[in-house]
Amino acid sequence: MHTPVIGILGGGQLGRMTALAAIRMGLRVRFLVPKPAGPAEGLGEVIVGDWKDPDVLRRFAEGCTVVTVESEWAPADVLEPVLPEDTALWPKAETVRIIRDKGRQKRVLAEAGLPLPAFACCATLEEALAAAERFGYPLMLKRYRGSYDGYGNFTARSPEALKTGWEQLAQEDGLLVEAWAPFVRELAVLVARSPSGEEVIYPVVYTKQVDHRCYLVQAPAAIDPAVAEEARRVARAAVEAVGGIGITAVELFELADGRILINELAPRPHNTGHYTIEGCYTSQFENHVRAVLDWPLGSPELREPVAVMVNILGRRSSDRIDLRGLPEALRIPGVAVHLYGKMQVRPGRKMGHVTATGTDPEDVRRRAETAADLIARYL
Amino acid sequence: MHTPVIGILGGGQLGRMTALAAIRMGLRVRFLVPKPAGPAEGLGEVIVGDWKDPDVLRRFAEGCTVVTVESEWAPADVLEPVLPEDTALWPKAETVRIIRDKGRQKRVLAEAGLPLPAFACCATLEEALAAAERFGYPLMLKRYRGSYDGYGNFTARSPEALKTGWEQLAQEDGLLVEAWAPFVRELAVLVARSPSGEEVIYPVVYTKQVDHRCYLVQAPAAIDPAVAEEARRVARAAVEAVGGIGITAVELFELADGRILINELAPRPHNTGHYTIEGCYTSQFENHVRAVLDWPLGSPELREPVAVMVNILGRRSSDRIDLRGLPEALRIPGVAVHLYGKMQVRPGRKMGHVTATGTDPEDVRRRAETAADLIARYL
Repeated sequence: MHTPVIGILGGGQLGRMTALAAIRMGLRVRFLVPKPAGPAEGLGEVIVGDWKDPDVLRRFAEGCTVVTVESEWAPADVLEPVLPEDTALWPKAETVRIIRDKGRQKRVLAEAGLPLPAFACCATLEEALAAAERFGYPLMLKRYRGSYDGYGNFTARSPEALKTGWEQLAQEDGLLVEAWAPFVRELAVLVARSPSGEEVIYPVVYTKQVDHRCYLVQAPAAIDPAVAEEARRVARAAVEAVGGIGITAVELFELADGRILINELAPRPHNTGHYTIEGCYTSQFENHVRAVLDWPLGSPELREPVAVMVNILGRRSSDRIDLRGLPEALRIPGVAVHLYGKMQVRPGRKMGHVTATGTDPEDVRRRAETAADLIARYL
Repeated sequence: MHTPVIGILGGGQLGRMTALAAIRMGLRVRFLVPKPAGPAEGLGEVIVGDWKDPDVLRRFAEGCTVVTVESEWAPADVLEPVLPEDTALWPKAETVRIIRDKGRQKRVLAEAGLPLPAFACCATLEEALAAAERFGYPLMLKRYRGSYDGYGNFTARSPEALKTGWEQLAQEDGLLVEAWAPFVRELAVLVARSPSGEEVIYPVVYTKQVDHRCYLVQAPAAIDPAVAEEARRVARAAVEAVGGIGITAVELFELADGRILINELAPRPHNTGHYTIEGCYTSQFENHVRAVLDWPLGSPELREPVAVMVNILGRRSSDRIDLRGLPEALRIPGVAVHLYGKMQVRPGRKMGHVTATGTDPEDVRRRAETAADLIARYL
C-alpha cells in the first residue's frame, strides 16, 4: 500500500490539527485554501487556488487517497462531480449540503424523528410572525447559510424585534425561525463513523458559550447517566440521518426535565472535540483521518477522569501577535498549549486553546482557565 | 514577544518530533540538513546545504531564536564561532564535543567521580593489550567518534580477538578499550535542563536491545526503588558534568548488586524517550524545546502506570514502503503509531515506533509489540 495522501479543503486550525495527526502516522497531507492561511502554513503541501473552480479542485484531488473538508463551507459539492476515479471524498457532498443549510438540516433531523426545538422555514415576515404566534417569544432567527458563532443569528423577544431582525438578516429565501430552547446546559457529542459502518462515540461534554462563542469544554459533562445515554443515542441517530462519515459533531441542549434537543451538526472535527488530543486515547483528528480512510477506529475513551479545554480568544486587533504569556502559561502543571500559528489577532478570533487533564473537575478547570488567560492577555 | 523560531541541525525523526512539539505550541521551525531528508520534509522550512560551511550555518541561524542539534554529529562547533548575536545555541558546542568523543566523554564523567566501566584510551595495540590484562575479557573496543548501534564497536573475548578488532577499527588516535559491564539490565534516564538551571528528570526506563539496537523501552523500569533513585542521581550528575542543556539522555547499566554504571550520553532527545509523547504529561520533545528557549519545563510524570515503546525497524531493502500493516495495527487498542515518513526501507532502519499505555506491564508490552510487528512485517 502506497503512503496515503489526505487532501484537506481548508487550511484553518481544524485542518492543521488533522494534518498533525496524519503526519504523526506517516501519512502525507495536501491542503487547498482560497487564500494563504497561517494555520496550514508549513505543514505538508499547501495549494492556494480558487476552490470554486472545478478544474482547480480536480487537479488538487489527483493523487489524493481521500479528500475531506475542514468546514461545511468547503466546496465538497463542486468537487464531487469531478472527483478522480482513485480518490474518495468523505463526508459526501450531500452530507455537507444538508448540514450547510440550517433549514434542510432541521428537516432531515425532524424527518428522522429526532428531538429538536420547534422550527419553521419562513419565506416572508408574515410567515415568521405566524410562526412566532405558535412558538412564543423569545425565539431565534437564523440565516440558512453562513451563520455561526452568533453571526447571522438574531434573538427576538417581541414582534417588533422580530421585524427588526428580519430586516437585518432575511435573504431571498427568508429565514429559519426557531423556538427558544429553555436549556439548562449545552452539551456536545462527537461521532466518528467510517464508510464501512464502524462507529465510535466520544463522551458527552459540557460546553460553555460566552458571547455565542465556545469558551470552555469539560469532559465528561457532569450530568445524569441517563441524560448522557440519551445524548449519545440522539447524536448517533442524527449522524446516521445525515450520513456523516469521519467526525461529525452534534451540539445539544439539555432541558430541565432531562430531555435532549439537537442544536446543530458540523460535518468535521469540532472545537468541542479539541480536548480529545490529550484527553482521549484517540483524538478526534486521528479518528477523522482513520474514518475517511476507512481504517479501524480508535478508542474514544478518556485517559484520565477529567479533561477541560479552554479557547484562547483574541482580545485586540493587531497584525503582530505577542507570545509573552506562553512561557508563563507553561508554569501551570498538566496543561498542554496549542497555538494555531495565526499571524493576526482580532477580538474573539480563535488563536489557540489549552487542555488540562486530571481528577478533580474544579482543579482541572482552574488550571485550563488560568493558562488560557495568561496567553490571551498579551496576544 | 515575537514568535520564536527553532533552528534544528538535522532532519531525521528526532528533528521531526521536536518540530511537531514546537508547531503545536505555535512556534516556527527551520531545519538545516546536508541532504534532502524524509522525516523533516513538509514541516516548517527545510534548508538543504553544506552544514560544515560556516557561511551556510550563519545564514541558517540568522533569525532563529535558538539553534539546537538533532544529533551529536551535527556541526554545533562550526556554528558557535559564527553565531548571530540574537541567536542562542543549546546545547553548547562544548557539550556536543565532549559527548561526541567517547574517550573524552568517559574522562569527563570519571573526573566528576561518576561510576563507569573501567576504560582506557589506547593509542596502540600494545596499550590495548596491557589494558586487557588489567580488565580481563570480554571487553569492548570502541571508536571514539561515529560509533553507534553496534557500528564501530567490537567485543573481544581473547587477545587474538582483540588484535583482530584493533586491525578492523583502530584509527589514528587508536581506540577506547572498555571493561565489560556484567549488567543485568540496561536502563536509561532523560534529563531536561534549561540555561537558567531548571531541571526535570524523567522516570528510569528499561531498554531492551536486540542486535545492538533499541528494540523496546518500558517505563517505568521494574526495578528496586533504591536502584531507580541511584540511576536518577547518576544521570543528573552526568548531565551536569557535561553541561547538558535541553534533553540529555543517559544510558546506564544495572549490575547484579544494584550498582549503576554509565554507558553513554546523548545531548538531545533520544529513542529511549519516545514513550514520553503519550506516556508523560510533557514529552521529551516539548521539554527540549522549552529548555532551549529557557522557558519553564513541564512535568515528566507518567500519565498512566505503564508505557511501552517498541521500534518499527525495517526488515528488507526497498525504495518503496508498504503501509499495509498500518490499518491492521490500528485495531490494537490503546496504541499510538508514529511513522517517520522515510521513503526507503533498509534492514534495521528506524522507520517508526508505537507506544502503548495502560496498567498491566505484560498487557501493555504485548499490545505494543503486536502493533509494531504488524507494521514492520510489510514495510
